Amino acid sequence: MPLETGHMRRLVELDKATLHSSLCDPVLDSINFLNEVMDRYPRAISFAPGAPNTRFLDDLDVSAAISRYRTYLIDEKGLSETQVNRHLYQYGPSRGLINELVANTLQNDQGIKVAPESIVITVGCQEAILLALRALFASPTDLLAATNPCFSGMVGAARLLDVNIVPIDETDAGIDCDRLVEACRNARAVGNKVKALYVAPDFANPSGSMLDLETRERLLAVAAQESVLLLEDNAYAFTSPHNLALPTLKALDRCARVIYLGTFAKVCLPGARVGFVVADQAVRDSSGRPRLLADELAALKSMVTVNTSPVSQAIIAGMLLEHGCSLTSLSEEKNALYQRNLRLLLEALNRHLAPESGFPYRVSWNTPRGGFFVRLRLPVEVDNKLLQISADEYGVLWTPMRHFHLDASGNDYLRLSCSYLSPEHIEDGIRRLALFLRDPRVRPAPVSQGGVDARAVEA
Amino acid sequence: MPLETGHMRRLVELDKATLHSSLCDPVLDSINFLNEVMDRYPRAISFAPGAPNTRFLDDLDVSAAISRYRTYLIDEKGLSETQVNRHLYQYGPSRGLINELVANTLQNDQGIKVAPESIVITVGCQEAILLALRALFASPTDLLAATNPCFSGMVGAARLLDVNIVPIDETDAGIDCDRLVEACRNARAVGNKVKALYVAPDFANPSGSMLDLETRERLLAVAAQESVLLLEDNAYAFTSPHNLALPTLKALDRCARVIYLGTFAKVCLPGARVGFVVADQAVRDSSGRPRLLADELAALKSMVTVNTSPVSQAIIAGMLLEHGCSLTSLSEEKNALYQRNLRLLLEALNRHLAPESGFPYRVSWNTPRGGFFVRLRLPVEVDNKLLQISADEYGVLWTPMRHFHLDASGNDYLRLSCSYLSPEHIEDGIRRLALFLRDPRVRPAPVSQGGVDARAVEA
Repeated sequence: MPLETGHMRRLVELDKATLHSSLCDPVLDSINFLNEVMDRYPRAISFAPGAPNTRFLDDLDVSAAISRYRTYLIDEKGLSETQVNRHLYQYGPSRGLINELVANTLQNDQGIKVAPESIVITVGCQEAILLALRALFASPTDLLAATNPCFSGMVGAARLLDVNIVPIDETDAGIDCDRLVEACRNARAVGNKVKALYVAPDFANPSGSMLDLETRERLLAVAAQESVLLLEDNAYAFTSPHNLALPTLKALDRCARVIYLGTFAKVCLPGARVGFVVADQAVRDSSGRPRLLADELAALKSMVTVNTSPVSQAIIAGMLLEHGCSLTSLSEEKNALYQRNLRLLLEALNRHLAPESGFPYRVSWNTPRGGFFVRLRLPVEVDNKLLQISADEYGVLWTPMRHFHLDASGNDYLRLSCSYLSPEHIEDGIRRLALFLRDPRVRPAPVSQGGVDARAVEA
Repeated sequence: MPLETGHMRRLVELDKATLHSSLCDPVLDSINFLNEVMDRYPRAISFAPGAPNTRFLDDLDVSAAISRYRTYLIDEKGLSETQVNRHLYQYGPSRGLINELVANTLQNDQGIKVAPESIVITVGCQEAILLALRALFASPTDLLAATNPCFSGMVGAARLLDVNIVPIDETDAGIDCDRLVEACRNARAVGNKVKALYVAPDFANPSGSMLDLETRERLLAVAAQESVLLLEDNAYAFTSPHNLALPTLKALDRCARVIYLGTFAKVCLPGARVGFVVADQAVRDSSGRPRLLADELAALKSMVTVNTSPVSQAIIAGMLLEHGCSLTSLSEEKNALYQRNLRLLLEALNRHLAPESGFPYRVSWNTPRGGFFVRLRLPVEVDNKLLQISADEYGVLWTPMRHFHLDASGNDYLRLSCSYLSPEHIEDGIRRLALFLRDPRVRPAPVSQGGVDARAVEA
């Protein structure tokens, strides 16, 4: 059969509309836009990224951490040098290598008692999210409930897997449990099923909200009643003031209702890309052999990344061993810095934007007690156009909250992250933000008052 | 609203039938079974795993490799110590950090000329596969063509994403191009579309088959004619005898028809978990901004693993720099070992199973010139029951080929992998295999010949 050789010369051009829908999702578009803005304005002060502070990076010694783990394998596990090399450099089990050390750390620091077999070590918390969603969501009638606003990594993973999300609005108590019950019932009424709720009980990204103890207990009860699993994201719990620290949902969970998503990025080292998931739920199949959900997640992981780099795992293991399988001392210093930054941010907002400061109109913000994030409400719609003005003319960046909202409810908010900045930059950045907020394109439209120009009155 | 506290005490038990269908796929079940058998018979000689030989692991020095990359960043890229620490220890771009070095290596070793921007660094080749499938397959009418038999990592990723596969049988030339054309037309006739073909042109896992140059050229022409992208898996090309090495599809590709999937696991270090994908296809969207498919894959990666560990990338970068951005010298020694192992395996099969050896019935196998794998055809169905007998009574493991087949055509075959074993184990293992194959439960049923027991005649 003769071929039309003319075809050979035409360069392939793909129409984006023929690619997977997650690539056209506004969340992904917004993240792209944000990254582009940050690239274009490298000298701007950026309240956008929620990355850990770089101050802690200069003290790291990954070679020492790997050596520490090697010594442990030889001295305590009885491995030979050759066996250690295989352990570190060969492929390893999908489930992970350092599960026992992670289990010990969870018990020591949080009173979470789980068998190492119920843990899967993942490439960051993001892979843990993806695996949990993939295992649990089998059909379009399976729905994911998620706090609204929601961490974009969770939304993105759901879009990538075509999982439908039901937003559950956040409240002052962190989450509206009645709304969850209602969502479950509404779903059942039309033949759907809410299979899990994603929630970050401690200083959630992006809202900074925190669930009080009563809400935690009630959420567990509601989840049991409605047969919903809880996907608990613990990333920011270490930023809590000591007197406010509450038990995690997993620590309160007595019936394997909670799938716990963890990361070592914030307390140990982002660059290792090591996270984990605790999935101690029993799985029943036709063979009758007892399995755990962790077994299923490990099987799925073999199709996503095969296994988490043993070298990366060794770095985290070495850090855990160095600190007696407790992250308390490692997180102590970081907690202090993030608490200070949050305090400085809130003080600067008060100094520059509170009515007493002479700021000409009402801007409101929440006052979280921990975490990296504060959200600010403006009198106008907060969109990419506004961000462009802020970057270009005022040299200050932030994140429109609409990126994190599952509906239109976040259109008036922006998110400020303080984790990454120095005290000087926080102060200077909020000063710039205040100037930006006085720009006529941001200020509320003047209300005409008996012929007097409202703008003049306000000023 | 009072809650039924009784619910709180019941342990969660999930019905596997309610989890995602990929978890019930026979491929995954088979892999589980294989892993269990290997765990239960640690002293058996195993021709099952396709893992790299551990002999090369003792020479590795990951700290030296990281140092080499640090020096490069300081001396050639002008970074300060502090900037290097951020580069290695902070989160990094989803696209990767070492793309330029990988692009140079591709050009030096394979004559593949691509811009660093068209490369995404991934957590092993497996994540590259997952990202490529996710981007390209948007609806149930989009079909993936794949060589049959097929690498289980590709099948698994397709199942995880609910991508439907059309098997294209392998031939002596590696792939039946006419069958591909037919599959594309059949798909179109019912409103479907074959969007891509997965193919490993060099010593494919599991068949060991290789595409000759004419077939490579024809495949590119057919792909252009039918508007199909080619997903080229290059994992085993380095095991080719020098006089047989052929250009990759990507090196022959002049119109961005090929998405190239690469790994550093086999030639550098499995434990780093670093692979990559070259996706230089243009993507057109409504904004009119020019984008590459690599941009889309990087965006998806942010929802799978965020970024590949910078520390892992540094290890691979250090090894590339140490060898002048060429894997030739690193692969040379490995090529020699795998060539030797393959020769020993084929010689042992001849010695123990050829008709001249006195083996009592006909067993056939292919004779690949490279790669890790040989497939053997038995006169009986090759299933897990047979593997169990082989493991339990003869101390030798292998992989049923049915795990890799997309239909029932592989039921009579088993796969032998020789990469992992020593010469002594290869010889001893094939001796054990020959004993196992003489077991009455494996031998063909005797044919009654004029009242004489055929079995006695055969023996």
